[in-house]
Amino acid sequence: MTPESAALAAPAPRLAAGQRRAQLLRLGTEIFSARPFDAVSIDEVARRAGIAKGLLYHYFPSKRDFYVAVIGAAAHELREVTRPETGVAAEDRLRHGLEAYLGFVEHRAQGFRTLMQGGIGSDPEVREIVDSMRALFVGRVAAGMGVEEAPPLLRAALRGWIGMVEAASLDWLENRDLSREALAGLLTLSLGSLVEHATTPRDA
Amino acid sequence: MTPESAALAAPAPRLAAGQRRAQLLRLGTEIFSARPFDAVSIDEVARRAGIAKGLLYHYFPSKRDFYVAVIGAAAHELREVTRPETGVAAEDRLRHGLEAYLGFVEHRAQGFRTLMQGGIGSDPEVREIVDSMRALFVGRVAAGMGVEEAPPLLRAALRGWIGMVEAASLDWLENRDLSREALAGLLTLSLGSLVEHATTPRDA
Repeated sequence: MTPESAALAAPAPRLAAGQRRAQLLRLGTEIFSARPFDAVSIDEVARRAGIAKGLLYHYFPSKRDFYVAVIGAAAHELREVTRPETGVAAEDRLRHGLEAYLGFVEHRAQGFRTLMQGGIGSDPEVREIVDSMRALFVGRVAAGMGVEEAPPLLRAALRGWIGMVEAASLDWLENRDLSREALAGLLTLSLGSLVEHATTPRDA
Repeated sequence: MTPESAALAAPAPRLAAGQRRAQLLRLGTEIFSARPFDAVSIDEVARRAGIAKGLLYHYFPSKRDFYVAVIGAAAHELREVTRPETGVAAEDRLRHGLEAYLGFVEHRAQGFRTLMQGGIGSDPEVREIVDSMRALFVGRVAAGMGVEEAPPLLRAALRGWIGMVEAASLDWLENRDLSREALAGLLTLSLGSLVEHATTPRDA
């Protein structure tokens, strides 16, 4: 391929396969966070990536495959940045995890929005990615409390708390009128009260 | 139309327009709660409703219009059943509202699931329906506390609480191992603590 034909066919630099895939996933995060799945075309993705459509299909056989990969990459990143450190006290682990989570929300806002939009979406594969991420978070919080398998009320409470963290995070992104510390403090205190309510026998 | 040709074209009884529309929306709730949007065809909806495809298009010009109407009807129903009674004390209003909400979750499980699946979906019109329902719930809880416009931390807390109610409700539907009273009790206590955390000045 001469330099001229390369410029015509693909103005973007040639990348190694791993880099190209990462570039496409970043671009997908940006595109899908801004517009609904139906409104995104593969032509547009290829054009913005500066590659031929055929090359895009080489990495992702369909638009849906591309979307699932974008959601999967965001979920993977969020799981990894919040991974509990070993040798850290339980309450510090929770605080670190929550800080890392809100850091992801803040700095990877598009990725977080895309993940949440896909989260309860109607695609079963996408829902599976987000649901298993949520189940992992519930398990980590329970493990931090020394609980191997949470009884029903505690499980519902922890699952509810993850829903609270997600909803409050989306509110935070939308309004941007709270400090990260204030939100983290609120969510931490709420988890404490919630666990207390879920584990204290109640009188009618 | 002779009785015979009517029987061939449409085995279902003839319904008045309002009844037909309601029948189609009920059917849509059932279909969309069980399978993703993309996997549902208008042919199937018409067949299961026992009407010609043309008649279905008369009510809903496209599959997406049908889906938006199904989500809208479920949101409308949930808003209505949880509407606060006048002349009732604030804490009773919350309790009644929450009981009605969980009653909807329990008895209209398909409608609730469809609503939540569409809730953070990627269709802007659908998202608008669910987001404005959530904003209404936040406003009602704040009004029950005598708050006209919630300051940022309280607003995030209330928005988070709605997310908790939704997530815990989905967990409840999935596992069915909790009484409605136990879940309502947990959510009510959690709201109390959450509001306290969001309105009490904190020392670092």
